[in-house]
Amino acid sequence: MDQEAEVIENPDNLEVVAPEDAHVIEPLIFKDREVGNSSLIVLNQEIHSIDLEGLWRNTKLHICADGGANRLFEYWKKHQRTEEFVPDFIVGDLDSLKADVQQFYEQHGCIVIPQYTQYASDFMKSMRLSMIYFQSETTRGLLYEPIESNKGLEFIQLEPAQVSVDMYILNGLGGRFDQTVHSINQVIQLAQQFVQNSFRFITPDDIVFLLRKGVNYIKYPSKQSFGCQGNPVCGMLPLNTEVVLNTRGLKWDVLHWPSSMGGHVSSSNALVGISGAVIECSNDMIINIEHSFN
Amino acid sequence: MDQEAEVIENPDNLEVVAPEDAHVIEPLIFKDREVGNSSLIVLNQEIHSIDLEGLWRNTKLHICADGGANRLFEYWKKHQRTEEFVPDFIVGDLDSLKADVQQFYEQHGCIVIPQYTQYASDFMKSMRLSMIYFQSETTRGLLYEPIESNKGLEFIQLEPAQVSVDMYILNGLGGRFDQTVHSINQVIQLAQQFVQNSFRFITPDDIVFLLRKGVNYIKYPSKQSFGCQGNPVCGMLPLNTEVVLNTRGLKWDVLHWPSSMGGHVSSSNALVGISGAVIECSNDMIINIEHSFN
Repeated sequence: MDQEAEVIENPDNLEVVAPEDAHVIEPLIFKDREVGNSSLIVLNQEIHSIDLEGLWRNTKLHICADGGANRLFEYWKKHQRTEEFVPDFIVGDLDSLKADVQQFYEQHGCIVIPQYTQYASDFMKSMRLSMIYFQSETTRGLLYEPIESNKGLEFIQLEPAQVSVDMYILNGLGGRFDQTVHSINQVIQLAQQFVQNSFRFITPDDIVFLLRKGVNYIKYPSKQSFGCQGNPVCGMLPLNTEVVLNTRGLKWDVLHWPSSMGGHVSSSNALVGISGAVIECSNDMIINIEHSFN
Repeated sequence: MDQEAEVIENPDNLEVVAPEDAHVIEPLIFKDREVGNSSLIVLNQEIHSIDLEGLWRNTKLHICADGGANRLFEYWKKHQRTEEFVPDFIVGDLDSLKADVQQFYEQHGCIVIPQYTQYASDFMKSMRLSMIYFQSETTRGLLYEPIESNKGLEFIQLEPAQVSVDMYILNGLGGRFDQTVHSINQVIQLAQQFVQNSFRFITPDDIVFLLRKGVNYIKYPSKQSFGCQGNPVCGMLPLNTEVVLNTRGLKWDVLHWPSSMGGHVSSSNALVGISGAVIECSNDMIINIEHSFN
């Protein structure tokens, strides 16, 4: 029953029709308008080369993971605008958060939630907080009450069917490589349990997100909207498990194409679909698309 | 027969004896002395926060992958030392190499080898060139003759049993995420065929390398030699396939511990062995260790 794998080189512009039953993903939606149940999670690395103001305005909930608050503060201090961009929450084991930063944000309405357990990372705690916030008014209300400081967030129950959050993650990739792999792995894991969530890592170079098993249609206003020179470069990255790929709208479309680490990986590919591309995958996988805020 | 997985928290300093049959890896050897058959491969990203001079002096062969030559040139131009650090070879499809950089390096003895095929990346071409150079005087000699410009390097035969090169890779990780994954995947693939090679990605934050299936002993002069505050942080990253881990000398040692993407991954762990640690893995895997040149 195995069909032979094929690679097809395409011209630079291709009209691609969205399949009827496709899972539609709009990776650039946050540049256009406010996203419904959306959170911005800032992790502890230097912030540079992104439109933080736009990202902030178009996401509803703003969370700093521990020392991520220091980075946010430093960034806006340079622009003398710290008071305009106060996170809703700071969460984590607080081994990095600076006292003056904590004090400033608390004075401006931010809630600090210590969670000292070392069996979850500050990133995991931030993702859990996002889901608690958007699950219901009841669970959201609990975030404004005292929370047990070791792992109180874990005691607040989440019902996967009720949770649907679009998470935008800043500073999750790059830096120490185990942190990069940890970030990706946490998203892979959480996505298995919470199938309605979406995840976008925003980096200075690209947008990195999870593709669900099945037929995905990546929709965008135009290729130019990614802000790159030429076709936006992309890669389909089977970091979870082996995947069989079928695509339509890439510079090098693949058909019945098995992809795995240690085997074939489609990197340095590119989007040529004029306003969308189809990626069908036999398992969840990670994709990145080149993107610049310039 | 399955033994139960265990995690053991250790004190901050632990005497760890090297097992007799272990594969000994010295990740910091390049800081101490010149490494035998070693190549430095410079890829096309900005160079920063590393001791490039030391790395250059302690590696024998210096290769720039296409636009990596621009980065090398820019870096040394700032220090007005471009003439002291001329690469032996520039290889790739040459779509990024600047004409003035090419001219300067050629005038100073560098050999430029165009390889236009798009079925291999400039990184792959650089690794292949390294192996050809060190395999034998005969194959090395071919590099100084004209080489077919599409994929001539692929026509030079390599015998895995005769090839043993330590490759140091600069700018292979970070930047666009598909490039990072591509770099890792190429190393995983090449290591399967060329079992005597070793690979080190050198980044501003860490050293990333491949652990071979079996018992590995990571040997270092002292924990301080990694240049970090406190214990050097590390992660065992099963990016290839599932691995069962047994360790001795980490802050959180693991026993009979299955690790996989989508499952458990040991990140933000740390070396506590005073001058070494043992990592036994049931398959090849990637490890990173925090490292600073400061």
